[in-house]
Amino acid sequence: MRLLIVVLGLIIPTFFNDSSELQAKVLTDSTKHISQPQPVQNPTDEDALFIRKIYDAALTESMSYPWLKDMCLKIGHRLSGSPQAARAVQYTRLMMDTCGFLTRLQPCMVPRWVRGEKETVRIMKSGKSLPLSLRCLAIGNSVGTGPKGITAEVIEVKSLDEVDNLGEKVKGKIVFYNRPMDRKQIHTFMAYGGAGDQRRSGASRAAKYGALGVLVRSLSTELDNWPHTGALVYDEQYAKIPAICIATNDAEKLSKTLRDEPRGSVKIFMKSNCQMLGEVESHNVIGEIKGSEFPNEIIVVGGHLDSWDVGQGAHDDGAGCMQSMDVLYLMKRIGYKPKRTIRCVLFMNEENGLKGGLKYAEEAKANANEKHIFAVESDAGGFSPRGFSFDAEADIFTEKFKKVSSWDKLLQPYGLELSKGGSGADIGPMKPMKFMMAGLRPDSQRYFDFHHTEQDKIEYVNRRELELGSAAMTSLIFLIDKYGL
Amino acid sequence: MRLLIVVLGLIIPTFFNDSSELQAKVLTDSTKHISQPQPVQNPTDEDALFIRKIYDAALTESMSYPWLKDMCLKIGHRLSGSPQAARAVQYTRLMMDTCGFLTRLQPCMVPRWVRGEKETVRIMKSGKSLPLSLRCLAIGNSVGTGPKGITAEVIEVKSLDEVDNLGEKVKGKIVFYNRPMDRKQIHTFMAYGGAGDQRRSGASRAAKYGALGVLVRSLSTELDNWPHTGALVYDEQYAKIPAICIATNDAEKLSKTLRDEPRGSVKIFMKSNCQMLGEVESHNVIGEIKGSEFPNEIIVVGGHLDSWDVGQGAHDDGAGCMQSMDVLYLMKRIGYKPKRTIRCVLFMNEENGLKGGLKYAEEAKANANEKHIFAVESDAGGFSPRGFSFDAEADIFTEKFKKVSSWDKLLQPYGLELSKGGSGADIGPMKPMKFMMAGLRPDSQRYFDFHHTEQDKIEYVNRRELELGSAAMTSLIFLIDKYGL
Repeated sequence: MRLLIVVLGLIIPTFFNDSSELQAKVLTDSTKHISQPQPVQNPTDEDALFIRKIYDAALTESMSYPWLKDMCLKIGHRLSGSPQAARAVQYTRLMMDTCGFLTRLQPCMVPRWVRGEKETVRIMKSGKSLPLSLRCLAIGNSVGTGPKGITAEVIEVKSLDEVDNLGEKVKGKIVFYNRPMDRKQIHTFMAYGGAGDQRRSGASRAAKYGALGVLVRSLSTELDNWPHTGALVYDEQYAKIPAICIATNDAEKLSKTLRDEPRGSVKIFMKSNCQMLGEVESHNVIGEIKGSEFPNEIIVVGGHLDSWDVGQGAHDDGAGCMQSMDVLYLMKRIGYKPKRTIRCVLFMNEENGLKGGLKYAEEAKANANEKHIFAVESDAGGFSPRGFSFDAEADIFTEKFKKVSSWDKLLQPYGLELSKGGSGADIGPMKPMKFMMAGLRPDSQRYFDFHHTEQDKIEYVNRRELELGSAAMTSLIFLIDKYGL
Repeated sequence: MRLLIVVLGLIIPTFFNDSSELQAKVLTDSTKHISQPQPVQNPTDEDALFIRKIYDAALTESMSYPWLKDMCLKIGHRLSGSPQAARAVQYTRLMMDTCGFLTRLQPCMVPRWVRGEKETVRIMKSGKSLPLSLRCLAIGNSVGTGPKGITAEVIEVKSLDEVDNLGEKVKGKIVFYNRPMDRKQIHTFMAYGGAGDQRRSGASRAAKYGALGVLVRSLSTELDNWPHTGALVYDEQYAKIPAICIATNDAEKLSKTLRDEPRGSVKIFMKSNCQMLGEVESHNVIGEIKGSEFPNEIIVVGGHLDSWDVGQGAHDDGAGCMQSMDVLYLMKRIGYKPKRTIRCVLFMNEENGLKGGLKYAEEAKANANEKHIFAVESDAGGFSPRGFSFDAEADIFTEKFKKVSSWDKLLQPYGLELSKGGSGADIGPMKPMKFMMAGLRPDSQRYFDFHHTEQDKIEYVNRRELELGSAAMTSLIFLIDKYGL
């Protein structure tokens, strides 16, 4: 089977007409194969046909989209510790019970942060026009301002370092972090990584020098009107001051006002009503199909069930949860009996604590009866998949990546590339257990239009793109289950 | 510069962290390069830096999105021969004049088809409930039913062959073509190709045996409520009978009704008011930058300016037009002076006649002073680009594709694959002129949610995805201009 054509010593994937003809052939062969098993010429052909069967099932019988739609519309967003998060735990367990998987809930303590009444940010110009309201969301884990709010002069900065340089000059003021995400990055997660410190650590850095509060430009690739929330982490050495993000268009507006108006004449009024209520019990949701030959060898597939408290958490990360459940569903649907235990884990509290991922890793390490051989996470949106990135401790990576890479020609016809890179936040705590981990890598261009906003809704999830992600993960797991890793 | 890692004899692109680090490096180098030119070690490095510069410009200074938004909101859809099409001709020429390109209009005669008053399709059950209206759109180029409409029994078929088999049994009836697009195709254009004959040729096939009209299941990958229009072509041997497409959900509903109700008790009422008014003059819009060394060697980049008469023609093919104009804009913006003439051609009448493409090819063939060396078309939606497919006459393809493929490592970091396949409908008529042609291949998963429907609007175009398409085409054209082809 000619999956690749070799030109000038480079391997060029046949992408359009040719590969589609091939797919049509594989499709026909695959159907033939199901009804009247034929001897196959070598393992590669057999695997190619089986992967085609997985994609056929995903594109015609996947449950990922109907499940996601149901959860988005009936439960909606589900911040850790909220009643909706508890309902999502029940919902996903019920679905996995319905599929006949072996399910359990893994208790973990999670922070319970609540937004309270809608927050407010206003630009106040002295003795002039009416105050101008900005579109805003308090940043997750932040303290509130108290009922009177804060009114203070505002200083715009582009980085945490700039605050260090200003030092005591920020005392008694509001610090406004306004460094945009870098649009020039091809992979938007790199741009996110390059700007995220402002939201995550900006409050404590400003508090160190006596600032009263911070505003943060939303982490969006576009200029738009949607504030993007997300988590901050307080440095316990300093006072906890309130932090609110504002839409990128409003960040531009505030910046322009500060440039245009006389120094000191512009103040900000900010008021938020959020608070951290302490820890409550929540759960990771686990469902599995026991391995027929090596039941104590575990392959994990997962996403995180919690979301921010706006929108519906459709892409982040309802999509990854439903795709993970779908991996088990599709295996069952096509009659594949795994040799190893395939375990779907829906982690709780990725967004503002990672307590679910930490708890799972803790128990996995302590359990001498189980050996994890692989974990894959889908937490980059339900977009068209473009590959997987693989991660492991350096001493085991090379050998295992060599094995994974030998499957490249089986996955390339589906537009999947295998690379080195990060895996996922929730499975990350298992890295010291020394097995291979991976992250599904969907196309990243649209993700930060929706991420952590009111816009993260089912209507922006495309069914086929979601299903192709399920198929990609099922195919990879099938190969690892069949050949070990 | 390590763009690829070789594992087990296969070339695996580094995709996520690694390649992003590389991009960051190239980005930094590139910036450095602009401000203080440095000696480069070999041509590949120089080209890589220049392509990075193209992407930087596209992601920060592209005009494709603002132009497209402007045209979609101020002109909207623009069927050949309509006042809107004429306004789009003026609009795009004005934009290219504003950029300082050498512009002209190339006259061509196009068919003028008008939909008239909204069409109607109703299911009529004998002596029972009220008639049930179906969501529908007359198929482009179709004749209307006349003011009284047509009421007749309906026969469901899945293919043109089935109509041949039924023969005289369809006489006096309405034929309902109901073969869905095959969701299992990974590339949705293959699924489109597999179902499109029903819309294109279904009317004449049914007319051959005396049918009165046809209904066609919309060419959508999803079950939804949007009717998708598109063109039919009448076979002049047979009577011209009216054809209307219905939404996929309504096709399912009609099919169920035909299964559930007693044979002969279900009739369809269909009424359409469309007509072909004959030919009118319209134009291809051409803008170019003259080559500095080989001005008579022409590189064409284009899309089609006409659209269907619903929605805004945003993806089909406003996106391709604006990306094509953007190629010239970006070259000018970054100060690139092409050696060869880079010509943007916005073709008229791709949707229902291809008259613009035919006219351009006719004049190109007749012009002994010009030599076309390459043409690329963007007409598959403004989605995240995944590569190019190349096409040429067989006797010249291999050698030229070898040269193109030598640039693979320069384009792969941007997620672009080079393959054999189709190019574009509008540039197709130039194939006998024996030069290389290509089509931009964006991710195809979402295209048939919007294609030829009311939904094809600017709000479903993502700015970054559109810009990356401009950058991909500019990069390929830069290489061809620099090295020839």
